Amino acid sequence: MPGRNAFYAQSGGVTAVINATACGLIEAVRRCSLQMGTVFAGHDGIVGGLTGQLVDTAQLSAAQLASLRHRPGGVFGSSRYPLLDRFRHRDQYQRLFAVLAAHDIGYFFYNGGNGSMLTALEVALFAQENAYPLQVIGIPKTIDNDIKYTDTCPGFGSAAKYVATSVREVSLDVAAMCRSSTQVYVFEVMGRHAGWLAAASGLAAENPDDGPHIILFPETPFVAEDFVHRVGATVERLGYCIVVAAEGVCVPVTEEIKEDQGGIHSHSQPGRVGSGLVDLVSRHLGYKYHWTLVDYLQRTAGHLVSATDQAQAYALGEAAVIRALAGESGIMLTLERTSDHPYRWQIGEVPLDKVAGYERKMPENFIDATGYHITPECRAHLSPLISGESWPPYYHGLPDYPPIRLVHGAVAYGKTD
Amino acid sequence: MPGRNAFYAQSGGVTAVINATACGLIEAVRRCSLQMGTVFAGHDGIVGGLTGQLVDTAQLSAAQLASLRHRPGGVFGSSRYPLLDRFRHRDQYQRLFAVLAAHDIGYFFYNGGNGSMLTALEVALFAQENAYPLQVIGIPKTIDNDIKYTDTCPGFGSAAKYVATSVREVSLDVAAMCRSSTQVYVFEVMGRHAGWLAAASGLAAENPDDGPHIILFPETPFVAEDFVHRVGATVERLGYCIVVAAEGVCVPVTEEIKEDQGGIHSHSQPGRVGSGLVDLVSRHLGYKYHWTLVDYLQRTAGHLVSATDQAQAYALGEAAVIRALAGESGIMLTLERTSDHPYRWQIGEVPLDKVAGYERKMPENFIDATGYHITPECRAHLSPLISGESWPPYYHGLPDYPPIRLVHGAVAYGKTD
Repeated sequence: MPGRNAFYAQSGGVTAVINATACGLIEAVRRCSLQMGTVFAGHDGIVGGLTGQLVDTAQLSAAQLASLRHRPGGVFGSSRYPLLDRFRHRDQYQRLFAVLAAHDIGYFFYNGGNGSMLTALEVALFAQENAYPLQVIGIPKTIDNDIKYTDTCPGFGSAAKYVATSVREVSLDVAAMCRSSTQVYVFEVMGRHAGWLAAASGLAAENPDDGPHIILFPETPFVAEDFVHRVGATVERLGYCIVVAAEGVCVPVTEEIKEDQGGIHSHSQPGRVGSGLVDLVSRHLGYKYHWTLVDYLQRTAGHLVSATDQAQAYALGEAAVIRALAGESGIMLTLERTSDHPYRWQIGEVPLDKVAGYERKMPENFIDATGYHITPECRAHLSPLISGESWPPYYHGLPDYPPIRLVHGAVAYGKTD
Repeated sequence: MPGRNAFYAQSGGVTAVINATACGLIEAVRRCSLQMGTVFAGHDGIVGGLTGQLVDTAQLSAAQLASLRHRPGGVFGSSRYPLLDRFRHRDQYQRLFAVLAAHDIGYFFYNGGNGSMLTALEVALFAQENAYPLQVIGIPKTIDNDIKYTDTCPGFGSAAKYVATSVREVSLDVAAMCRSSTQVYVFEVMGRHAGWLAAASGLAAENPDDGPHIILFPETPFVAEDFVHRVGATVERLGYCIVVAAEGVCVPVTEEIKEDQGGIHSHSQPGRVGSGLVDLVSRHLGYKYHWTLVDYLQRTAGHLVSATDQAQAYALGEAAVIRALAGESGIMLTLERTSDHPYRWQIGEVPLDKVAGYERKMPENFIDATGYHITPECRAHLSPLISGESWPPYYHGLPDYPPIRLVHGAVAYGKTD
């Protein structure tokens, strides 16, 4: 008789490699079919767990499953629906556990960021307190790279590779035309509180004078005058200036700009920083400018993943199964760097309560003395994370992400709403 | 004794494959070194021709030259500096021809769009009228795909592949999270007058219900009510809606939006259409939205070129040399489609005065009856143009575009300013 079933959910913003984790996990379960039953994936993450909409992954063919390794997005749906305090919101947990019990779930795999680990922790504690036998394993994921106790977070390396590649390429474009066209280019990247992706853009600058010339980190207070002066000096020297700015940079909104662009400048708006900066440049320096807002493209570029990131994502999915079968619970898996040159890593773990809800900032020695670029230490740390290419299959000139129809498990567990 | 020298200039917006044309041209000249001398490239295009800043391409090593095949941007610099009427601006032409004569230029290769072909035509006529022996060959290039008499324009296929790939990938992202996060996604692409790139995004929709669900062409009058209704109906049906909009779409600016976002909404601003559309969606439907402005990234993505496009760009550079040596002049080379299945093409030509200054619109039968998507005819026409992959070499996880130092030819030709 096979072992108990597993629940797997994707949580929070998806990445280019979160499905590689799903692939690693489900393939590992199929290999261990004597010890673990079926993987039920939450349709839209934990929401599916609450509503009983669980995807029966046994319905996926081996080829469909293998295609997940390259597929961006979240194949089972993800959500930003946190489970709150288990005492105050006991009804939610009761509903979830009724669904888990009806599906004979003994393993709970939660694939998300530091906020999602709070949910995983609450679920683990509720299970203990209610004597429901459940092994809970958190699997890290976030392009923000801000989870503690792990060398990096799956999804970040690929986003970093996309950002650095795009900055390098657009730099060549602007350099070619700056004498008669655009002189200042602003590239807005994700990162509200931590400048990891902004820092990754610095990898594009391998030779002196390569772009990006100015990186604006959320960690560094933004001083408009200094920024404008620096842009001017760079254009004077090179003819052009490439600026990368994290969305979390506080570009001050003058009354004048507020009147002109109020809608765009409200804090939660993507594009606020990019449009605010080119506005500053245009008003104070008069240079021609363009800007780009890559938005979700940076987290969903399956066509340009880091092979290292993809391999780590897959391995974490696989390891989650192995550790669960070894009896572990209440942990989040981590990546541990064992060597810099060559880059080597292994999978470790940390108790959920050490990571849940915390946020990892960039180390101070990753931003250089000017505050506008990365240090050699930062480069050495980030460079291996973007290394290696892993192309998806192509069909008709486009990455081939075959359609996958999700079939819900037909388990009777009573009404959950 | 070798033949006379050649002048080569890049003109207008650069592309991911314009350097492949330079590569094909210079490599061909090196193979024909008995008949043609050195290629002098205009530093910043025609501006270098006027100022005498000509890059001596003989200084490029074979490896550097070969690297141009994959390098985006314009390695010799491009410019948007049109030479105007040769009678009114006789001094400009005299300056240019003094530089050409000093460098013993007998071949003039001009690599640009339909505006640039006007310059090529004027140069050809000036040479004739002033008995300066010069063979003038135009080589098409533009991501806008709007040059007449050619099946496609080098640069377009790669931009199209980038746009269609990115739209496909971001669709997977939005589909995964639409129940708790973004429901409407707007993707702004280039195209002021012709919707070729917007149309190319339609290639991403290979299966029913794939994104993009709504394509806004500059050719179709924008009706806000109809657009809003269609977005609403799509979200009702699928849970989300992917919109691609050409920058040339006239999104009406209400007084309210004008007050809020005036700066961004001025017509020449990138981001005007994307921010205007999400504003409409938010005000009338209240959906959560995100948007992207890929801007120059769509024309500079060397990491995702169409192998077909790159091969055509290279072949046109090569053919320009062969035709010039065969005595041709006053023409622009074209791509002729000789078969659809399989896609086959050959190089043709057209007199410069038939293309210079004209613009090719999309055929009417490429936009479907709703006005919001492409027809099967359009798909059949565009699909082969994005086919095939050609990866640049990678180093340290990033495309390797080695630095190239431009050395000016040390020819004495007197002061030109």
